[in-house]
Amino acid sequence: MNSIDLNSDLGESFGNYKIGMDEKVIEVVSSVNVACGCHAGDPIVMDKTVLFAKESGTAIGAHPGYPDLQGFGRRNMALSPAEAAAYVIYQVGALDAFCKKHGVKMHHVKPHGALYNTSAKDPKLAQAIAEAIYSYNPELILVGLAGSESIKAGKAVGLKTCGEYFADRAYEEDGTLRARTKSDAMIHDEEECVERVIRMVKEGKVRAVTGNDIEIEAQTICVHGDGEKAIAFARKIKEALIAEHISVEPSK
Amino acid sequence: MNSIDLNSDLGESFGNYKIGMDEKVIEVVSSVNVACGCHAGDPIVMDKTVLFAKESGTAIGAHPGYPDLQGFGRRNMALSPAEAAAYVIYQVGALDAFCKKHGVKMHHVKPHGALYNTSAKDPKLAQAIAEAIYSYNPELILVGLAGSESIKAGKAVGLKTCGEYFADRAYEEDGTLRARTKSDAMIHDEEECVERVIRMVKEGKVRAVTGNDIEIEAQTICVHGDGEKAIAFARKIKEALIAEHISVEPSK
Amino acid sequence: MNSIDLNSDLGESFGNYKIGMDEKVIEVVSSVNVACGCHAGDPIVMDKTVLFAKESGTAIGAHPGYPDLQGFGRRNMALSPAEAAAYVIYQVGALDAFCKKHGVKMHHVKPHGALYNTSAKDPKLAQAIAEAIYSYNPELILVGLAGSESIKAGKAVGLKTCGEYFADRAYEEDGTLRARTKSDAMIHDEEECVERVIRMVKEGKVRAVTGNDIEIEAQTICVHGDGEKAIAFARKIKEALIAEHISVEPSK
Amino acid sequence: MNSIDLNSDLGESFGNYKIGMDEKVIEVVSSVNVACGCHAGDPIVMDKTVLFAKESGTAIGAHPGYPDLQGFGRRNMALSPAEAAAYVIYQVGALDAFCKKHGVKMHHVKPHGALYNTSAKDPKLAQAIAEAIYSYNPELILVGLAGSESIKAGKAVGLKTCGEYFADRAYEEDGTLRARTKSDAMIHDEEECVERVIRMVKEGKVRAVTGNDIEIEAQTICVHGDGEKAIAFARKIKEALIAEHISVEPSK
Repeated sequence: MNSIDLNSDLGESFGNYKIGMDEKVIEVVSSVNVACGCHAGDPIVMDKTVLFAKESGTAIGAHPGYPDLQGFGRRNMALSPAEAAAYVIYQVGALDAFCKKHGVKMHHVKPHGALYNTSAKDPKLAQAIAEAIYSYNPELILVGLAGSESIKAGKAVGLKTCGEYFADRAYEEDGTLRARTKSDAMIHDEEECVERVIRMVKEGKVRAVTGNDIEIEAQTICVHGDGEKAIAFARKIKEALIAEHISVEPSK
Repeated sequence: MNSIDLNSDLGESFGNYKIGMDEKVIEVVSSVNVACGCHAGDPIVMDKTVLFAKESGTAIGAHPGYPDLQGFGRRNMALSPAEAAAYVIYQVGALDAFCKKHGVKMHHVKPHGALYNTSAKDPKLAQAIAEAIYSYNPELILVGLAGSESIKAGKAVGLKTCGEYFADRAYEEDGTLRARTKSDAMIHDEEECVERVIRMVKEGKVRAVTGNDIEIEAQTICVHGDGEKAIAFARKIKEALIAEHISVEPSK
Repeated sequence: MNSIDLNSDLGESFGNYKIGMDEKVIEVVSSVNVACGCHAGDPIVMDKTVLFAKESGTAIGAHPGYPDLQGFGRRNMALSPAEAAAYVIYQVGALDAFCKKHGVKMHHVKPHGALYNTSAKDPKLAQAIAEAIYSYNPELILVGLAGSESIKAGKAVGLKTCGEYFADRAYEEDGTLRARTKSDAMIHDEEECVERVIRMVKEGKVRAVTGNDIEIEAQTICVHGDGEKAIAFARKIKEALIAEHISVEPSK
Repeated sequence: MNSIDLNSDLGESFGNYKIGMDEKVIEVVSSVNVACGCHAGDPIVMDKTVLFAKESGTAIGAHPGYPDLQGFGRRNMALSPAEAAAYVIYQVGALDAFCKKHGVKMHHVKPHGALYNTSAKDPKLAQAIAEAIYSYNPELILVGLAGSESIKAGKAVGLKTCGEYFADRAYEEDGTLRARTKSDAMIHDEEECVERVIRMVKEGKVRAVTGNDIEIEAQTICVHGDGEKAIAFARKIKEALIAEHISVEPSK
């Protein structure tokens, strides 16, 4: 590959509550995932965020989550696949309305938080979400954990998919993320993280915790805008990619 | 006119809470206004309701309201016009997503409850809502109180509009509804209501509380599905219209 | 035992949404569990329900649930024990405020739905809830599934407890409820249900699905007010108890 | 007077959303108003905030608001007085539960935002709120705009009351606050604000916008913790009070 996408969550403020350094992180990324009013975001924030992302020239995606504002969509909720699918369609349509208002096309859908994690592992939930997105608009790209059930389900229903790589996370030999409960789940050395990113993009390979290389097929890398440190790290990744003549652009 | 629309609110259930006799009222009406998850309805209910309305062959509209589930959208809320507009776009897009899923076109938007009443009187709110709908889809029909600021604003921004007539309400000489605080706000004699409907449709005239005739330009009549009595009344109106060779069909 | 409590959930309406035949079921039961505004109920409903229960002379308990109105508190949510405890205290205090307004003492706390089921099995959640209730008012009685982790945790922290028996459910030999996924989870024969209730109250024994008798220590029986059939069944149980000279009264 | 209270809102964070510099402002004030989960705050935040305020030795009050998290309780909502009263009781009880957990006594109730402003002017709403608080606990102090309908209603029902003065606001000759729509509603000169505070406390007098002196009977002064500037201003007021041998302590 000579190109890769950098994505960040955006528009997570709610009413009087401000969160995230949207203005800074958007300068680094090529695509953004906009909260849709269930786990974060509200209609006024969504309106502004879509306009802001359009003016910044990033690809815009919906970031639907569980209806749990107090838990920021990070707590698992036992919705049935059909219930979760209905919540996804609802949120995707709501965000798309602001895309239409501002004359910009929605590019992708990336489930958020617990919905992302659970659908990465649960084939039935993954299928329900993929079918929901396809039923709304078969041109949308489904973003999910690289190699996960989400990506498999997206391909199975006929969606374009985009596998996501986590720059600061250790991987198991089966391609799943090392559980956060393990002490070595996170890679704290930024240089090492950057080197792993470059290798993953160029060779499609990542060294797993076992010491063996595994293949990761990812078209986007998740970065964060929740603090100066996170943004500096995102910039470091971007600069390294450019230095290696890898262009940063939305997935196709 | 030799045709008129009969409309009813639909899909106002929420989670475990069931409300409205949707299955009965839909047999009477030619268009339905589907709640969008703010004052009533939820994604699962919306999904089912859109499918149900499609199968019944009625025109489907969005019924956006204030974000006040506990008050069912009937309590006024001091949202700015821009805030209200963002909430309208959000809800219209969310419902439209289910229309897309089920392969049916959204026909109209009718604000609900306090949003309906306030936008009927407040030109700034009316304009913000009309512009919001137009920005989302200029083909949508705006349904509002006949002759009100809503209808004026809709026409001004270039939307098709549909004035609404209330069969059981008394009218002031200026075309506004007699305030509910007055003892003669409601017309309790069903025969009289039906006669007034027929005359309004045929002649565009209604007798005001002053005893003088006024002109009402309405293309839809609001009926209710919240009880057997309401449905019987709706049927009576429909039968009278048909007996007068007035067809009941969605506005255009 | 020559007495037993009959309890029912009450006050589950929300805003414009009415649910449950509160007026009928309250004539049958000796205690009620009032929804507290998270999974069901709202402040206006709570106010009326507490007054109504006071006038009816039933013991009043709080019925706290997960903050999931759309799911009616029946969907599991991955709250930490500390989060769940905070939600319990919040809801218990809110309901107690209406008890104070109406000059009546709160009698018990019974977790609702998924919070009830999960705390019956999860000792950490059970302990957090028991400690929360004790910290608020050590005089309150904790109602939970007979023999479950809830009851054990309640006793461990020093609360009075009240084990609950389900009249229409089959029991495993270890005293847990037969899973609803099994075809024989429910006992449909009302006469059989009533006989089992009488035996449980008199002998403390219930026949498990294996055919062997098990011991159940329960001080309350759950009945429902969500339909005429449920209320008739509740009446049947009550009549049978009285015929056996077992008085129906709140637990102590 | 040789003493006055300084109060600040506290505990307005919600879930993942942090707002306010609670740790800094609490060092300045003698009483705090804790959000109760409707316009801001959640059970977890309330739990921590009550403990934090207890450890800091400030008096703790409930800060109930309209159920409008997205609008932060600042938008007016057309609740009936009875509805508003039920929401006040609900929130006061919920916060009091955490006071009980932490073994600290609730000191006062101060309505928030639109509920504060509307009840300052509307005698019926003011009366409903005052009666609600009295019915819950007649020992609680009602905090409201000095000289407003809130204070009158509180006295009429038998509550202790505490009039609030706004250090940076201009006053009309009738004792009401100069409307924010006027260009001279705010007093930007901090020295002038401080001088006015000292005079108000010592003499009970404030110069109105007309240039005439008016009498203001206030026992508390509102300060803010939403930024460094606000906290510096609060400190300046406190230092000036102490320099004038006026002690800063909760109202009685």
